[in-house]
Amino acid sequence: MVDIETFENPKPGRRYEITHVNPEFTSVCPKTGLPDFGTITIKYIPDKLCLELKALKYYFISYRNQGIFYEAITNKILDNLVEVCSPLEMEIISEWTTRGGMNSVIRAKYEKE
Amino acid sequence: MVDIETFENPKPGRRYEITHVNPEFTSVCPKTGLPDFGTITIKYIPDKLCLELKALKYYFISYRNQGIFYEAITNKILDNLVEVCSPLEMEIISEWTTRGGMNSVIRAKYEKE
Amino acid sequence: MVDIETFENPKPGRRYEITHVNPEFTSVCPKTGLPDFGTITIKYIPDKLCLELKALKYYFISYRNQGIFYEAITNKILDNLVEVCSPLEMEIISEWTTRGGMNSVIRAKYEKE
Amino acid sequence: MVDIETFENPKPGRRYEITHVNPEFTSVCPKTGLPDFGTITIKYIPDKLCLELKALKYYFISYRNQGIFYEAITNKILDNLVEVCSPLEMEIISEWTTRGGMNSVIRAKYEKE
Amino acid sequence: MVDIETFENPKPGRRYEITHVNPEFTSVCPKTGLPDFGTITIKYIPDKLCLELKALKYYFISYRNQGIFYEAITNKILDNLVEVCSPLEMEIISEWTTRGGMNSVIRAKYEKE
Amino acid sequence: MVDIETFENPKPGRRYEITHVNPEFTSVCPKTGLPDFGTITIKYIPDKLCLELKALKYYFISYRNQGIFYEAITNKILDNLVEVCSPLEMEIISEWTTRGGMNSVIRAKYEKE
Amino acid sequence: MVDIETFENPKPGRRYEITHVNPEFTSVCPKTGLPDFGTITIKYIPDKLCLELKALKYYFISYRNQGIFYEAITNKILDNLVEVCSPLEMEIISEWTTRGGMNSVIRAKYEKE
Amino acid sequence: MVDIETFENPKPGRRYEITHVNPEFTSVCPKTGLPDFGTITIKYIPDKLCLELKALKYYFISYRNQGIFYEAITNKILDNLVEVCSPLEMEIISEWTTRGGMNSVIRAKYEKE
Amino acid sequence: MVDIETFENPKPGRRYEITHVNPEFTSVCPKTGLPDFGTITIKYIPDKLCLELKALKYYFISYRNQGIFYEAITNKILDNLVEVCSPLEMEIISEWTTRGGMNSVIRAKYEKE
Amino acid sequence: MVDIETFENPKPGRRYEITHVNPEFTSVCPKTGLPDFGTITIKYIPDKLCLELKALKYYFISYRNQGIFYEAITNKILDNLVEVCSPLEMEIISEWTTRGGMNSVIRAKYEKE
Repeated sequence: MVDIETFENPKPGRRYEITHVNPEFTSVCPKTGLPDFGTITIKYIPDKLCLELKALKYYFISYRNQGIFYEAITNKILDNLVEVCSPLEMEIISEWTTRGGMNSVIRAKYEKE
Repeated sequence: MVDIETFENPKPGRRYEITHVNPEFTSVCPKTGLPDFGTITIKYIPDKLCLELKALKYYFISYRNQGIFYEAITNKILDNLVEVCSPLEMEIISEWTTRGGMNSVIRAKYEKE
Repeated sequence: MVDIETFENPKPGRRYEITHVNPEFTSVCPKTGLPDFGTITIKYIPDKLCLELKALKYYFISYRNQGIFYEAITNKILDNLVEVCSPLEMEIISEWTTRGGMNSVIRAKYEKE
Repeated sequence: MVDIETFENPKPGRRYEITHVNPEFTSVCPKTGLPDFGTITIKYIPDKLCLELKALKYYFISYRNQGIFYEAITNKILDNLVEVCSPLEMEIISEWTTRGGMNSVIRAKYEKE
Repeated sequence: MVDIETFENPKPGRRYEITHVNPEFTSVCPKTGLPDFGTITIKYIPDKLCLELKALKYYFISYRNQGIFYEAITNKILDNLVEVCSPLEMEIISEWTTRGGMNSVIRAKYEKE
Repeated sequence: MVDIETFENPKPGRRYEITHVNPEFTSVCPKTGLPDFGTITIKYIPDKLCLELKALKYYFISYRNQGIFYEAITNKILDNLVEVCSPLEMEIISEWTTRGGMNSVIRAKYEKE
Repeated sequence: MVDIETFENPKPGRRYEITHVNPEFTSVCPKTGLPDFGTITIKYIPDKLCLELKALKYYFISYRNQGIFYEAITNKILDNLVEVCSPLEMEIISEWTTRGGMNSVIRAKYEKE
Repeated sequence: MVDIETFENPKPGRRYEITHVNPEFTSVCPKTGLPDFGTITIKYIPDKLCLELKALKYYFISYRNQGIFYEAITNKILDNLVEVCSPLEMEIISEWTTRGGMNSVIRAKYEKE
Repeated sequence: MVDIETFENPKPGRRYEITHVNPEFTSVCPKTGLPDFGTITIKYIPDKLCLELKALKYYFISYRNQGIFYEAITNKILDNLVEVCSPLEMEIISEWTTRGGMNSVIRAKYEKE
Repeated sequence: MVDIETFENPKPGRRYEITHVNPEFTSVCPKTGLPDFGTITIKYIPDKLCLELKALKYYFISYRNQGIFYEAITNKILDNLVEVCSPLEMEIISEWTTRGGMNSVIRAKYEKE
């Protein structure tokens, strides 16, 4: 896996929300071998660490030629990012372009206990 | 009825939401025999099973020449899909194009006890 | 008053919501005698009966040459429809086009005890 | 017919264009007896006379309970207004709301010889 | 073929334009057997005859279960309608929903010599 | 102050909401003497009295050449209207066009004890 | 009349187009005494002089309490600005908010001989 | 730091909300030295003091050539403004234009104890 | 190169226009190695042959991991498609997402002599 | 002046159009010292040379702290870019955010003789 870098939260005592939207996500459908296109949104409340944007970009690009389903990608991104920056809360929303006349959205959420 | 296929939820322990939107739904009005057109949205929180998209598409197409009212379709789709994938929660929203100068929306919801 | 017809709720045990939007409502201002134009939205949770769309349309048309104020129409439609189909909940929203540089919206709600 | 009033063009030597848009036009379908709703746009280059707005409004209202087809209304409005204000050019555009799942637009133009 | 009815042009001496838009067209892809969905726009300058809307609607519905390609439908509709109402000019525009991540538009035009 | 007229609430027993939107409000900045432009929205739940629209319009026009700040106008309109019609609840929202590259919104609310 | 200031065209040899849009124009209807609101657009090809923006703003404000009709304002602004900066071409477009359910647009153009 | 001026709250007893939106914020990325562009929204409930708009504008301009990260700016603006006007509540939302194919939003909130 | 398939024009005598829009085009920037994303539009007037959609899709996918500049792609697609289907006219429009705060569009056209 | 780099046109024989849009342009008003914000669009038909995007970006950034008027910037950018890449045609469009309640657009065009 590509390294996801972090930097120290500049305001660690305050609960505040950071959102990054990537409308240029692409991966490959494991069934058909055809490319999938989507928008990935990351919303999180940082604890001690924030996600570094440039490394995040390379992390997303690493899916470009990978075969993986919508539901699996969304949950895997959430697991990977939670592991790396251990946020107070995080939500991943993936919105996919039309396939077979239908379009899909997946939302998965994590809360620190 | 067309078979609605399922696959195993790749992240069964986490409560997350899946949405599929089909803007190409069509059936027939039982009163006039004329076609109806609508958008069907499925929102659900999977338990052990997820809905397979391609089979879902054929399930929707099976209504193409069937005579059925808005309220009945919406509730029947909810009943059929709940039966097949037994989700934690599911909501069906059907939005219909203008008939007689009016347009209609039906929302029906299921929650596992 | 024009008859508002009903049909039996096809899924009487489930709390679900039906919305009908009529963007072609017109009545007459009792003060100026000039026509008013608006969009009437009906949102309801049926109990035993659903509103039949074609009769509803004729009910709306019956206001075409009637002189009545915004606030009165909205409440009267709510009263009439509640009486006819006895829903669990119903909301009427009337949105009016610009008059004297201002536009108005009225929302009235009913809940069965 | 309701009188359509005019006033003297304040700048008679200059070719300039005046547009009035009425999104609140309604008449009755002669076939079904049901109301039709549309937006009527008047674009003209005045010669000696301009159309007075208030009288124009009453002219439009005079169609409210009249049975007349889309194509006929559009041409009749053009004929009536040309007769009254004798413009250098005039165009009438009527845009109609959805009927039977289809919507229509009619454009008719006049040029003084 | 379903009969396409016409009525006499109410203003035969004037060159004016009529547009009908049908956003509820559906046919079947001859290759895959799956339904196609599109919007068909008819723009024409009538000569002696105008297209009757209700019959036009049934003409469009007659494609519902027919297998035919985008390019062929568009040209066939143009040929059929020109034959029936012999207009001075006619244009057919068909706009299709996304298939395989791409969407298509076809425009064909006829002018009377 | 211009008189704000009222009329009797036609449905006094029901809690329902009335909204009037005036996108044509203008006053004068007391600092620069230059005109300010905004949209004023009134949302209220009437008790015994409703606001009469025509008088309301003249009340708004009375600010046309008055020098007053955004925060003061919003609160003053709320105080004036509450005094006149004694509603169960009322909210005033003022949205102002760009000044110095920034635009502002003020929301003030009243609830009857 | 308020002075409309000009400055020297920084590129006098080239035919290029300048557009200024003022969405905050207001004047008074001479018939009703009520305020009118509109957007005034100035498009011109400068010859030797350009319009100075701040003075232009005060020129527009000078109409605030003046009674004048749509057609007259549009032609008067064109005459005033052409006189002051003697452009190669100039067009004034005035777009007015809804009055009596209708809205209007006036376009007047000047070309240097 | 540029002085942020305040003025006395004209309605100190009432909890009401003031929003200022600045779509013309720009600073410099400390990593690349390239300019960043964003929209800063301030929402607050004033206690005794309100923010003066002109000084606020100069405060925003003071960031023009400063190197600072998204997360740091948002929290610093919140800290600075809270210190100056001591509001009951304040929220800062910064929305940034696309960098590396992604765009970001930061929301930070303060509540007086 | 992936084969671009064609089929016989179903209406060879008529000049009509076919448009295919692919909003899911992606290639790689030869300078940075990072992915580019764009929408490719093909507009053409067929002579004897039409472009087959499924093969066209695979042709577009063949650029996925290829390093090539905006200007070169657009011209190369035009050259390739003209060679394969020899149309009467063809235009390629490529619209690219934001890179370095700027976005680009390239339009190239071919006409048969 | 920052160097504007070019690269060889990959298809020199064909007349085709390249557009670059920069919505993040900022300079300083020479009169007030306050920042101006705008969108600069470059449309050109290359002859032997194309504009390199990264250098173009730095060229735009070089205006960041420069005092210059709208009309002058637009013409200067056109002069600079024409000098550097000697295109067959070029157009510069600058669209500016609201100042004093008005917003402006300047369009300047060059054609090689």
